[in-house]
Amino acid sequence: MLDKVLDHIDAELETSLERLFELLRIDSVSTDPAYSASCARAADWLAAELKQLGFDASVRPTPGHAMVVGHGPQAGSTGPHVLFYGHYDVQPVDPLNLWETPPFEPRMVTRDDGSRMIVGRGAADDKGQLMTFLEACRAWKAVAGELPVQVSVLLEGEEETGSPSLLPFLEANREELSLDLALVCDTTMWNSQTPVITTMLRGMFSTDVVITAADRDLHSGRFGGPARNPIKALASIIGQLHDETGRVTIDGFYDDVRELPDDIKAAWQALGVSEADYLGAIGLTETAGEQDRSLLEQNWARPTCEINGIFGGYTGEGFKTVIPSKASAKVSFRLVADQDPAAIREAFHAFVDDRLPPDCTVEFSSHAENRAIAMPFDSEPLTRAAAALEREWGRAPALLGAGGSIPIVGEFKRMLGMDALLIGFSLADDNVHSPNEKYDLSSFHGGIRSWARIMAALAD
Amino acid sequence: MLDKVLDHIDAELETSLERLFELLRIDSVSTDPAYSASCARAADWLAAELKQLGFDASVRPTPGHAMVVGHGPQAGSTGPHVLFYGHYDVQPVDPLNLWETPPFEPRMVTRDDGSRMIVGRGAADDKGQLMTFLEACRAWKAVAGELPVQVSVLLEGEEETGSPSLLPFLEANREELSLDLALVCDTTMWNSQTPVITTMLRGMFSTDVVITAADRDLHSGRFGGPARNPIKALASIIGQLHDETGRVTIDGFYDDVRELPDDIKAAWQALGVSEADYLGAIGLTETAGEQDRSLLEQNWARPTCEINGIFGGYTGEGFKTVIPSKASAKVSFRLVADQDPAAIREAFHAFVDDRLPPDCTVEFSSHAENRAIAMPFDSEPLTRAAAALEREWGRAPALLGAGGSIPIVGEFKRMLGMDALLIGFSLADDNVHSPNEKYDLSSFHGGIRSWARIMAALAD
Repeated sequence: MLDKVLDHIDAELETSLERLFELLRIDSVSTDPAYSASCARAADWLAAELKQLGFDASVRPTPGHAMVVGHGPQAGSTGPHVLFYGHYDVQPVDPLNLWETPPFEPRMVTRDDGSRMIVGRGAADDKGQLMTFLEACRAWKAVAGELPVQVSVLLEGEEETGSPSLLPFLEANREELSLDLALVCDTTMWNSQTPVITTMLRGMFSTDVVITAADRDLHSGRFGGPARNPIKALASIIGQLHDETGRVTIDGFYDDVRELPDDIKAAWQALGVSEADYLGAIGLTETAGEQDRSLLEQNWARPTCEINGIFGGYTGEGFKTVIPSKASAKVSFRLVADQDPAAIREAFHAFVDDRLPPDCTVEFSSHAENRAIAMPFDSEPLTRAAAALEREWGRAPALLGAGGSIPIVGEFKRMLGMDALLIGFSLADDNVHSPNEKYDLSSFHGGIRSWARIMAALAD
Repeated sequence: MLDKVLDHIDAELETSLERLFELLRIDSVSTDPAYSASCARAADWLAAELKQLGFDASVRPTPGHAMVVGHGPQAGSTGPHVLFYGHYDVQPVDPLNLWETPPFEPRMVTRDDGSRMIVGRGAADDKGQLMTFLEACRAWKAVAGELPVQVSVLLEGEEETGSPSLLPFLEANREELSLDLALVCDTTMWNSQTPVITTMLRGMFSTDVVITAADRDLHSGRFGGPARNPIKALASIIGQLHDETGRVTIDGFYDDVRELPDDIKAAWQALGVSEADYLGAIGLTETAGEQDRSLLEQNWARPTCEINGIFGGYTGEGFKTVIPSKASAKVSFRLVADQDPAAIREAFHAFVDDRLPPDCTVEFSSHAENRAIAMPFDSEPLTRAAAALEREWGRAPALLGAGGSIPIVGEFKRMLGMDALLIGFSLADDNVHSPNEKYDLSSFHGGIRSWARIMAALAD
């Protein structure tokens, strides 16, 4: 039966693409309220898709963007009842001028070598990825009349804004959503031939920091010298967050960081990632993190502190003689292992408070507070999914960490008691969150086939 | 003879006011093209005034509003040939609803204590001030038949719009306008009893600094840790620009800064400016500049480094997991004494270059490079003008600095080789650039008498 399903997937690839393109045309940018209607449209579109697949599906309102929840019919097998998770919202498109074609007019581009890719905002993150699963379900239904395992689906519209409604939604629907295993398709492959199961995800604490000095903007001639400059204060504090070896200097920051097991360290080392390849692709040559850690450790297994935005004073063309009243930054921490976001938050606040110059006040407002997550390497679903991926791609998947957060995965574990299998087909050069985002056709096609196999493997 | 001139000024005060009111009724707002004809009318009116005083006067067209230039007859004395500068354009009047009476219907208001003030747009800035000088000339001519020194006059109509035509005009008429000494009446008194000569104006070097790391914006999960963050690099460099005592740490920054003479230091101290008054007005309590310098020194006599703007990454609502490719700042230095803007530029570039982390590049683009202006405290015209002011007001003028720049004064020095005496009679509460602008009658009357005395003193 699986072979017939895979044949069907191959035969129907063009219609699968048409459906994906419909979804990509919806500009569901979640960070900007101007796109709220588009987010609602994307949710409606997905609920309709699920209904077509025989799901009991609905759009469920939240204080932010809606959730789409669908429950498939009971399956014949005794395999796990899985909850597939994806997100239909996308990153903002700015800077728009760097896009070669409009971000919400997806198109297929054929490379010189004949390979094809889907270009558009959300192509990889996460519309293209979530559609691999829905298309796999569609193929199973078309060929076998039912899915090999019982499937429920949860699609959110706030992943790119830190999922503010997710936690209350899971809490309010805990019984409905506490199933056996979560499947998440929002990660990458190792390369276009090597699939990956991601077993470690970093958590995050992120916050706005606003420092205020004078109660108004000042003329830098009239007040320059005596007047406190909040940009200076902010820059000075940010400049102290790391020491010269790249280590974060906040008190107790590394207290709950676990050391990576030696065999995993060795396996990662064996992946042969070179700084030249990894950093060369983005115009860099040297790692900037902790200098006594390998590149992959820095990205997957070590916590960071990043400045994601900074703003203050006059930033337009030319020059203005202003000493501003306020300066602000967006600061985030990628967390690992047992680091507690709340403890990191308190330690960061204390770090800033301790360094605040006279006459300055600071306000913080947190965006995200998520713990890191880790899937046990010897779990049954992991073993089965790994075997299915090996059959599809001809090689065993790499068991890796990921530098980013997928907040839902932590909540699945914490609130719903479910482990999650993180299997995605995006590639490193997909320009996720950047202009000219793309998703290789081989990712999309191989992704659909992979999920068809994994569902079968879990049902065995 | 001077006493007779002063008596004449007192006797003719009402007719002096009538002439000022005529000028104030002309709504010569330079920023708004709708008032172009009014600007031309003000220029014509002033040229006619100068002709009445025996000047060879003309309205000289520019690409913007016209200049009025007048040359008085040769004087009997061998004193300096002075160039008086003022401006006939005024600020817009909005918000109009906050004016108690129409801004171009000047009126005399008598306070409860019997003192009087002239209310209307331009009363202080700068029509009332420039008329103090013309009325002093009128009195000298009426009583003595001639002026005590040779006088030329330059009145512009674009001061409130940044004087775009002034530099080309000075350049084109360099020979005609390169006289011995400039007199500028566009500054304030210390208070209504204490005249001021402003002898120091800070210069400026300002520049954009753009630091680039990766060749594109990066996802902070995918690259956070190994990837260089240009905001961190910029913040760290900015954070090192000052030491903990508020001193700028750039090599050689203070090399060409002259120490203020002890008597001037003492005189400034005696002005009794308190941090509570000066900083309290803007919501601050402590000076932020060099901690071993007084507030006024920090503002008038010491150079500064300010960050006037900073920008990088995502700065909108919410949060974006980005490590940006670039981060930028606008940095300016207020300069004093003999500091060379070009040398400061080079020292700053070296400071940044020395601290630039691996894989970062920096671009600079300068906005302004102006030397500070300082009239030597022992210069002959300054000493004579100070004595004249002391005779008029019964106390020695305060010899002050100003934290900002007055571009015209720099150009008089740079292009025409002239020092300038900055003597004005406006008060801090004159509502300059605001609704209900006013000029105290005591400023106008004392100003006319002061210029009459100063002209005599310069001629002795």
